[in-house]
Amino acid sequence: GRKVLIVYAHQEPKSLNGSLKRVAEEELSKQGCSVTVSDLYAMQFEPRATRNDIVDCLHNSDEFNYGVETWEAYKRGGLSNDLIEEQKKVQEADLLIFQFPLYWFSMPAIMKGWMDRVLVQGFAHEFPNCYDSGLLKNKLALFSFTTGGSKEMYEKGSINGDIRYLLWPMQHGIMHFCGVKVLAPHICFAPEYVPEEKRKEMLIAWAQRLKTLWKEEPINCSPEWYFK
Amino acid sequence: GRKVLIVYAHQEPKSLNGSLKRVAEEELSKQGCSVTVSDLYAMQFEPRATRNDIVDCLHNSDEFNYGVETWEAYKRGGLSNDLIEEQKKVQEADLLIFQFPLYWFSMPAIMKGWMDRVLVQGFAHEFPNCYDSGLLKNKLALFSFTTGGSKEMYEKGSINGDIRYLLWPMQHGIMHFCGVKVLAPHICFAPEYVPEEKRKEMLIAWAQRLKTLWKEEPINCSPEWYFK
Repeated sequence: GRKVLIVYAHQEPKSLNGSLKRVAEEELSKQGCSVTVSDLYAMQFEPRATRNDIVDCLHNSDEFNYGVETWEAYKRGGLSNDLIEEQKKVQEADLLIFQFPLYWFSMPAIMKGWMDRVLVQGFAHEFPNCYDSGLLKNKLALFSFTTGGSKEMYEKGSINGDIRYLLWPMQHGIMHFCGVKVLAPHICFAPEYVPEEKRKEMLIAWAQRLKTLWKEEPINCSPEWYFK
Repeated sequence: GRKVLIVYAHQEPKSLNGSLKRVAEEELSKQGCSVTVSDLYAMQFEPRATRNDIVDCLHNSDEFNYGVETWEAYKRGGLSNDLIEEQKKVQEADLLIFQFPLYWFSMPAIMKGWMDRVLVQGFAHEFPNCYDSGLLKNKLALFSFTTGGSKEMYEKGSINGDIRYLLWPMQHGIMHFCGVKVLAPHICFAPEYVPEEKRKEMLIAWAQRLKTLWKEEPINCSPEWYFK
């Protein structure tokens, strides 16, 4: 059975994000996948990249460099337990699903902190092993999120610009950088401003997509896809 | 005298980011500006958007909606003190400088949390008051950051794509959305991989730019600037 890690960032289980997360757990489990959820708010996941992420002595305590220190700590097994736990989940997963509400054209800080702290050099990438040779190659990622604005507000030429513009740092800059192949995003536009009936349709559509997810081809994660 | 708020996110005062922050404090003070610094790591600034940001009762305690709750709390003066403090600093400032190392094609989570939590509806925007009519109009913002990759790696057609691609969510999606006019970013490429002499030149160049900063015209914060 395939393994899926859902990294989930919403404070409210009753939210549409909460429901989308449960739909994915149910549908993928039904398929025989083993599903793990990192519920970041429930875990009170620490988003700040600090010296506390290194449990033992520093490589250079005279001038703290987070990137160097976490790289060195990873190699000698000196990262904090919460990071080691998350890295294990990533290592085992065939597919990473990121489920969140869009905050300021990006992911909420608690999820950005997961990226900043978990995907350290040595584990997720190690120059020149980045992009197609990133250390997490052979994995898939999918960004599933809700927006405040409508679909029309995120079209090319509209006020917010094409929704794909804001996917670049997340899909290309993080996932592709680590070698992860990216499936098309799953976007629920403006759930707060539609009738309950429409929100139910959103959940059904997500469950439907998940039924054939493993047959999907990854996107071509290059500037053409984002800015054409 | 003009007022400047520097929102600063680096763990190490001896870092180039720390030096760039001090150079800005010194140069702008010399010009007669009043300079305030929010040193996010030193403040142990909370990046997580949670129910704790509302000190009194919730508008709807049955289903927690962070955007709605902070909007309502802002209107009745019920936001937590750390947010009120930051909002006062923003309100008074003519210029916001964001000083940080680029983490994953974006700002570190601690700074994203500052955006998520401080720039609440009612304070920074209130539909339809967004973009050119955003509530923080008549202010300027400048993103000043360091990168791991070289300038060549952030050119159009190169592996990381044009550096401007990743500026879209931060400059347009956050600052422009709130009505803030954006000055050209200040980017120090790959300071970790250049000789000490070159890092000194980077500090001198930043001080030089600040001398005539108030004469600069904002960029044209539209897709043409980013994706041309």
